[in-house]
Amino acid sequence: MLIQEQINVNTDGRGTYEVTSDVQQIVESAAVETGLCHVFIHHTSASLILCENADPSVRNDLERFMARIAPDGDPAYTHNNEGPDDMSAHIRTAITQTGLMIPVKNGRCVLGTWQGVYLWEHKARGRQRQLTITVYN
Amino acid sequence: MLIQEQINVNTDGRGTYEVTSDVQQIVESAAVETGLCHVFIHHTSASLILCENADPSVRNDLERFMARIAPDGDPAYTHNNEGPDDMSAHIRTAITQTGLMIPVKNGRCVLGTWQGVYLWEHKARGRQRQLTITVYN
Amino acid sequence: MLIQEQINVNTDGRGTYEVTSDVQQIVESAAVETGLCHVFIHHTSASLILCENADPSVRNDLERFMARIAPDGDPAYTHNNEGPDDMSAHIRTAITQTGLMIPVKNGRCVLGTWQGVYLWEHKARGRQRQLTITVYN
Repeated sequence: MLIQEQINVNTDGRGTYEVTSDVQQIVESAAVETGLCHVFIHHTSASLILCENADPSVRNDLERFMARIAPDGDPAYTHNNEGPDDMSAHIRTAITQTGLMIPVKNGRCVLGTWQGVYLWEHKARGRQRQLTITVYN
Repeated sequence: MLIQEQINVNTDGRGTYEVTSDVQQIVESAAVETGLCHVFIHHTSASLILCENADPSVRNDLERFMARIAPDGDPAYTHNNEGPDDMSAHIRTAITQTGLMIPVKNGRCVLGTWQGVYLWEHKARGRQRQLTITVYN
Repeated sequence: MLIQEQINVNTDGRGTYEVTSDVQQIVESAAVETGLCHVFIHHTSASLILCENADPSVRNDLERFMARIAPDGDPAYTHNNEGPDDMSAHIRTAITQTGLMIPVKNGRCVLGTWQGVYLWEHKARGRQRQLTITVYN
């Protein structure tokens, strides 16, 4: 059995957006008891992470980390057609994830206690982001 | 066919722990000839990497790299409830892997000559880490 | 259904090499309508990324980024048997991807408009790199 669904997530600019419950809902409706769930993002300036879900300051600190190692408007970058957040967004995407695979057990993603699924928008302005979720066994 | 197993790995603090043979054993007992094997870690302060398995200095140098770009006790971090290694562990997890997918051929993970599967503990103190391994075709 | 194929890619030194059409060809010949495609690289000094495919300056800037955070010949590294690009190549591999999973729909990888599949050679000199591609549903 393999079920594939697409969802859209509207972001309102740089930051993390939790999609754990959207993913769990698709897994539950797929009625896969034991298997795997794959979440894919169809973009090169937004990415996915599994991250601590209890304290929002973790995601703020992750932004600070990225701002330090891949800052906006870095004069070293030549690709800046879309502005100072253009290349920084591509770099941040490259060193995080475009896809996440999560085990499914008892009909649900078996995430650790502190693991949440986050879409990470790396562009300053919001946009609609497309995800494809595939559940199978 | 899809087989899913959980294993626990006890770490004794920051560093890499090879789990290649644990993974291969599960693949062999699964009797999947050609397929895929997924290794997942249920934590946000420890991660997984496929890394050079011949010279331990590679993993020591990887630690040095992480200590430079994501140091403990960085005053830029606000999330430090669990101490100076709290936020650095989350960052190191975010820029490595929470899951690894490896092709299976002739009943074994077909790793490159120098590829080993490593759990990377990012916390200073050891703890028990949980992995889920899924083998299927 | 699960089809697994191996391809070799000859690189001529550090840089990105697009393999999107090689991957799409295997997916098409696999005749999997809806499913997943996994691309795996059997090395620890070359990696995979999904990256912007329109402007080559994006990949040049990614090289500049890596040269800054994981430079060749860094005196902090002890592992340098193969020269100044030895440890930098392992680090760059560890913080990008060894495997990419892409959803398949209507018999093709459903990549975003700007997503291309790239092999990233991290060694200064070229070599033959081995990929395993698995398509299934």
